[in-house]
Amino acid sequence: MIDVLSRRDLDFLLYEWLDVPALTARKRFAEHSRETFDAVLDLSAELAQRLFAPHNKMADAQEPTMRPDGSVAMIPEVKKALDAYARSGLIAGPFDEQIGGMQLPTTVARASMAWFQAANAGTAAYPFLTTANANLIAAHGTDEQVETYVRPMLEGRWFGTMCLSEPDAGSSLADITTRAIRADDGSYRITGTKMWISGGDHELTENIVHLVLAKTPGGGPGVKGISLFIVPKFLPAPDGGLGERNDIILAGLNHKMGNRGTTNTLLVFGDGNHSPGEQSGAVGFLVGDEHRGLSYMFHMMNEARIGVGFLATSLGYVGYRKSVEYARTRTQGRPVGAKDPSAPPVPIIEHADVRRLLLAQKAYVEGALALGLYCAALVDEQDTASDAASAAEAALLLDVLTPIAKSWPSQWCLEANSLAIQVHGGYGYTRDYDVEQHYRDNRLNPIHEGTHGIQGLDLLGRKVVMQGGAGLRLLGTRIATTTSRARGVGVDHADDLDKAWRRILDVTEALWADGEPTVALANSSVYLEAFGHVVVAWMWLEQLLVVGDQADDFYQGKRMAGQYFFAHELPKVGPQLDLLASGDRTASDMNPRWF
Amino acid sequence: MIDVLSRRDLDFLLYEWLDVPALTARKRFAEHSRETFDAVLDLSAELAQRLFAPHNKMADAQEPTMRPDGSVAMIPEVKKALDAYARSGLIAGPFDEQIGGMQLPTTVARASMAWFQAANAGTAAYPFLTTANANLIAAHGTDEQVETYVRPMLEGRWFGTMCLSEPDAGSSLADITTRAIRADDGSYRITGTKMWISGGDHELTENIVHLVLAKTPGGGPGVKGISLFIVPKFLPAPDGGLGERNDIILAGLNHKMGNRGTTNTLLVFGDGNHSPGEQSGAVGFLVGDEHRGLSYMFHMMNEARIGVGFLATSLGYVGYRKSVEYARTRTQGRPVGAKDPSAPPVPIIEHADVRRLLLAQKAYVEGALALGLYCAALVDEQDTASDAASAAEAALLLDVLTPIAKSWPSQWCLEANSLAIQVHGGYGYTRDYDVEQHYRDNRLNPIHEGTHGIQGLDLLGRKVVMQGGAGLRLLGTRIATTTSRARGVGVDHADDLDKAWRRILDVTEALWADGEPTVALANSSVYLEAFGHVVVAWMWLEQLLVVGDQADDFYQGKRMAGQYFFAHELPKVGPQLDLLASGDRTASDMNPRWF
Repeated sequence: MIDVLSRRDLDFLLYEWLDVPALTARKRFAEHSRETFDAVLDLSAELAQRLFAPHNKMADAQEPTMRPDGSVAMIPEVKKALDAYARSGLIAGPFDEQIGGMQLPTTVARASMAWFQAANAGTAAYPFLTTANANLIAAHGTDEQVETYVRPMLEGRWFGTMCLSEPDAGSSLADITTRAIRADDGSYRITGTKMWISGGDHELTENIVHLVLAKTPGGGPGVKGISLFIVPKFLPAPDGGLGERNDIILAGLNHKMGNRGTTNTLLVFGDGNHSPGEQSGAVGFLVGDEHRGLSYMFHMMNEARIGVGFLATSLGYVGYRKSVEYARTRTQGRPVGAKDPSAPPVPIIEHADVRRLLLAQKAYVEGALALGLYCAALVDEQDTASDAASAAEAALLLDVLTPIAKSWPSQWCLEANSLAIQVHGGYGYTRDYDVEQHYRDNRLNPIHEGTHGIQGLDLLGRKVVMQGGAGLRLLGTRIATTTSRARGVGVDHADDLDKAWRRILDVTEALWADGEPTVALANSSVYLEAFGHVVVAWMWLEQLLVVGDQADDFYQGKRMAGQYFFAHELPKVGPQLDLLASGDRTASDMNPRWF
Repeated sequence: MIDVLSRRDLDFLLYEWLDVPALTARKRFAEHSRETFDAVLDLSAELAQRLFAPHNKMADAQEPTMRPDGSVAMIPEVKKALDAYARSGLIAGPFDEQIGGMQLPTTVARASMAWFQAANAGTAAYPFLTTANANLIAAHGTDEQVETYVRPMLEGRWFGTMCLSEPDAGSSLADITTRAIRADDGSYRITGTKMWISGGDHELTENIVHLVLAKTPGGGPGVKGISLFIVPKFLPAPDGGLGERNDIILAGLNHKMGNRGTTNTLLVFGDGNHSPGEQSGAVGFLVGDEHRGLSYMFHMMNEARIGVGFLATSLGYVGYRKSVEYARTRTQGRPVGAKDPSAPPVPIIEHADVRRLLLAQKAYVEGALALGLYCAALVDEQDTASDAASAAEAALLLDVLTPIAKSWPSQWCLEANSLAIQVHGGYGYTRDYDVEQHYRDNRLNPIHEGTHGIQGLDLLGRKVVMQGGAGLRLLGTRIATTTSRARGVGVDHADDLDKAWRRILDVTEALWADGEPTVALANSSVYLEAFGHVVVAWMWLEQLLVVGDQADDFYQGKRMAGQYFFAHELPKVGPQLDLLASGDRTASDMNPRWF
């Protein structure tokens, strides 16, 4: 079986480009070394491919079901894999040692997780969500909450979820109706219905820690009234074990096109099916202050968005690798211009159009992986930079890049999966091969954790103008540094990137010229796409700088994929930016009656 | 339930634009009138929506299975729908009256079929393939073959298939290994294995007529040795009933991502499981002359390619209509800039980004439908024009447009289905809604009947240079006629289209400058896409001419969708043509080792 990711590419990105081992000079990572990072990556690849990949197809074909008693049945391979993952300690990778973590750099932890996401997105989702949940409680919870909830999650004994959406409030959190009422003991009683909750119920772990957004009285309308609560499936007992069943029931499983291995649930809180403390209502514990729930959740959400980018990237990557392998072994046809029809058929990788399909995938998935790891490196910088200015700069840049890190891989690594099917021809459209599942799995990513449209509004409506445009300027400075280095050493494409970036700046300014870009926001998804392509072109130029004049097969491949991106992809932003600059009003002016 | 297509749009295209009733002045269609066309369309819509649409989802969830005895089990709704379809006489729509047909124009017959394809692609595939098969035998078979095989197919008592591909020869027909040996009585014995045969086995009809490509001895290497055979599942008895079981067995069903309602089969011919005439080997009957099989099959294939375009279009169209309906009824969020967070949520169609997602779909699916019907009108012209020159001109133009009519809807109406999911948000990703199935079903269309890559090679490598470029010149003349009319009446966008077309011509010339465009062919898929967008822009300008200054909702919608196409879509060809003109060699130069 072919590796689901390329360790060679990871080494290139982590060591040759981002110089992650340099982080070990920092106090937080002082116990680490290139060797410990390698060990984590080796272990991740080994576990992912031995225990996660083999049941990926089975988990898709036999998705979880709800038993008559309301519990969830699923194939046993999932628990077996996750138990081994828990034992490995990898869930706790980036966390503080004092709460059981390994204090791994986020860069390495993301790379580790990517192996599991590539091997089996459905199964990897459980620890992925758990890490995000634990991270939020670790950041905003009390010491007791950290001890009670984070520790068992880092040990893999409990898993975590995030409960934001409701049946009538997906993208629009202002409209959630879940309520929390304070009880005398300081806890809250939660009532309401949450939709699309991944990992919302299962028997993989003895307990599930839900993080729930709910409104408390007096918080005012819209998102201001929202608070955040820890709502465990089983209330913790004073001895650290499990106490009473909380008043939460699984009301249904969503049956999806892909990503079927992860239970996706409709949960009802506080409808009286259980009576903890002899009273109905789900018991919840406030995180931080009342009415600040959304700001805490955004902390987690930004992390989750980058995680979704990695998920999309990993799925794109594994599809790419499988289609390269297929193209090398499947024989059919003869080269264009071949004169002898009785010559034996050649491997289809000999056909230029097939190589184009592979190059496009390579340019997408390796560009996306570079972007994801760059963002992860910004998290490390934000968290551990020796001076506050560097940390703040990293945080600012990360803020601008997050909608791109989420949306770009979701769009283009999905496209990569489509091209992987195309390389396989009719076989790729069957469930006998893997690529159709990757494509179905990946189609989720432009939807969850903020749709493509939401990311566009975030980028154009907020990120590029926040702090008077400081984030945009900072990104420009970084890009200029790259292009000037490229010019200095004679690496191509710096002019193309500079020119594209200048156009982004001009268009951004034009769109915001009247201070109220209602019309412009109608095309914010187009802006998001163009911006994303420019950012990924930058990531490719960064990679080409590392390649330099090295000439072995790996570097030649990087060089050609970079060339592909600059020749075939970056120019696509021209018409998009023209459209935005033109003040196009087509979507704004369209009357709903005219459809 | 919402209509799966828009009858208003069909009326616009067939009557206001193409003036199909004018065909009734021709002898072949003299019995017809606008009223009979309307009746066919009414009947099609009614049958499609009453009997085909309701089991679309069920046929997907409960795909056909192979019983232990080698026969095929499927849900009974399929046969019920197809029996009613057979009784309606629609299968025979475009065929000659003397063999039981209705002599309908192809334009009307295609529009009729589109209702069924939109309602249920899986079930509609059976008569779709049967029509193509019957058409081929009617054109190239003997009178006796027509009487024996075509008549029962037109009555819907037998269905037909086309058996081209083999496990190791999908796109490369030169490599087929199925053999045919002539017997003393003039029949042949066929042995070999055919893969991807849609409708290859089932019990929907009492017999199945396979059209099989096989090699006869002495035909030389490559495609030149290929002949075409009628190979029925049951040999016809002299009395017109069924005789012996032929030596054909179902070796397996392919399990696909979508389009699951159609059995897709691996068939083995002549392995001795049955012994017709007490001898093993599948009995086949030569169609036309030996070694000319591929040319006959191309006749059917070109028709099938346009049919695949219609299938892709229909799936895009139904997804579009469902997402408009969803966007009108689903409420969430408030308009950008709304100040009152306690105002009730609005239908999501009020959000400009959602309207953009709908406009894109509308521009794709209505552009594709126009292209498909335009091609169908060319078939009518080719078949019934009063003068030979007009007929030849129609045939020539059809030849150039066929790869576009197949590939463009396959790409962009699939994209429309993705956007339909996006409009539905998380719900669209579940199997509770229809759009995810349309997306899965539609993903087949860039693969079968010649992949996207094959269409690109056909267009750039053959169609634009055949007859010294006569087809390309003819298309240019037609486009110029449209743009000059548009200028005459002050309809926008003529300059954009002229300019894009001139670039196509320049680039085509440049690519063929050295007479051997091996490098250029590496990017022939890019050429195909750019060419397709220009052709569909032309289709939009044609529609805008019909719209003129009419201002009711329907025409306003057409106007905006046309504007969308010219503003958002046509400009995409600029960078594609730049790339082609640059002589880009990235894919050509990529060494397989470097992946």
